[in-house]
Amino acid sequence: MITLSLIGIGTGNLDHVTLAAVRALNSADVILLPRKGDAKSDLLDLRRLLCERLLEAPVTTNIVEFDLPSRDDGRDSRNDYLGAVDDWHAAIASVWAQLIDQYLPNGGRVGMLVWGDPSLYDSSLRITQRLSDAGRAVEVKVVPGITSLQVLTAEHKIPLNALAEPVQITTGRRLRERGWPSDAATVAVMLDSGGAFTTLPPEDTYIWWGAYLGMEKQCLIKGWLNEVSDQIIQRRAELREQHGWIMDIYLLARKPLL
Amino acid sequence: MITLSLIGIGTGNLDHVTLAAVRALNSADVILLPRKGDAKSDLLDLRRLLCERLLEAPVTTNIVEFDLPSRDDGRDSRNDYLGAVDDWHAAIASVWAQLIDQYLPNGGRVGMLVWGDPSLYDSSLRITQRLSDAGRAVEVKVVPGITSLQVLTAEHKIPLNALAEPVQITTGRRLRERGWPSDAATVAVMLDSGGAFTTLPPEDTYIWWGAYLGMEKQCLIKGWLNEVSDQIIQRRAELREQHGWIMDIYLLARKPLL
Repeated sequence: MITLSLIGIGTGNLDHVTLAAVRALNSADVILLPRKGDAKSDLLDLRRLLCERLLEAPVTTNIVEFDLPSRDDGRDSRNDYLGAVDDWHAAIASVWAQLIDQYLPNGGRVGMLVWGDPSLYDSSLRITQRLSDAGRAVEVKVVPGITSLQVLTAEHKIPLNALAEPVQITTGRRLRERGWPSDAATVAVMLDSGGAFTTLPPEDTYIWWGAYLGMEKQCLIKGWLNEVSDQIIQRRAELREQHGWIMDIYLLARKPLL
Repeated sequence: MITLSLIGIGTGNLDHVTLAAVRALNSADVILLPRKGDAKSDLLDLRRLLCERLLEAPVTTNIVEFDLPSRDDGRDSRNDYLGAVDDWHAAIASVWAQLIDQYLPNGGRVGMLVWGDPSLYDSSLRITQRLSDAGRAVEVKVVPGITSLQVLTAEHKIPLNALAEPVQITTGRRLRERGWPSDAATVAVMLDSGGAFTTLPPEDTYIWWGAYLGMEKQCLIKGWLNEVSDQIIQRRAELREQHGWIMDIYLLARKPLL
């Protein structure tokens, strides 16, 4: 029997890790750390650092780094996003299965460090489901973690929702395609490849933007879109150039939140 | 100068507290603990327990309990919800101001324990803003905490969003008034006084429900609404009767999430 713990580790700020995550890390026999290519080696370094700092007996926990299969971005741009993601998840599940067979042939506890929280725009639960669907006896445990959205609102000192109002969490792709969701007073946007907010009316939209949230290189900008839109796009390009990668999210509203 | 830290403490599970929250608690000169009446004394007990367990020097931290003003539910039912909330927030801000003057006349650090995360359906940031608006020099700090929504998804082992799809977080009141939000594949419902999901088509809606999430008395139910709707309503009434209060939330989808 394999126990697979998906451990939410927050956004790179060690202080945002929960006591449950520390415990889950320490009870794993094997921790799987994905390598996502040179451009995102910062993230691997952060995961390594987290293991180093939080494991009480790092010598006895087997930390296994592996190359994460990459997604077919060509299909992505040919409007076969879901197909590309499906194949990608299958490839990752296959790698996980091989690693589990190799390192825990007689069963045991696997820990996977999940950026943010396993519930929000993360595929670990879907990939795990593929292992079960393929007939493996896998018991899944989920340890919640602080998401980048929570760090965004904490750092800007704002709520996610307007008073008693709904909030929509969506993707840059969707915002670009469909515009402002009809039933939401505030909209949180994740996975934007850049500037989806430029499709909105700039005079009537306020943005709270953040990149590398929770990390030392965190960057925050806020204001009405007509005042800060260009600044965000320029800063994002500079930061991406400087660090080789970027992760940024934002919250949008049509009036002040406090 | 007053530093006011709004510290997200999760949902009553001590393991879900972050290292940052532990640090913020320990650096406070005064911790304000609201008393919300006998029915919700469990929640006060949990806050007391958390202080007891996590404070390294509980003797030197001044823990001050105070009676939280209550909201005018009469106006609430007369469709003056926002007006009632506005007056309520003003009354709470006034109590906070008195306590700060009394216990920290020369300034210092105040810690407030916020259920879940200060960003999500919580008024602490708005009440704090009233102190600033009234001319007080208050520096606000926000420490993110694990929300009940994250515990709901972790315990049910599901994501919050369908693959690449948006998710709406809304209130029971809004769901009842407006039905399914037009742009959302999944809908998370909070602050439901009971059964707002009965307004949706029961054959086409799947629910993951949870009460007292993160606590020992946690209760989970999931299924298509036509199979579990009555069960949830009955169980909710029983639990409320048994414990004197209830907090429950749920996630809705029109098809399986994994």
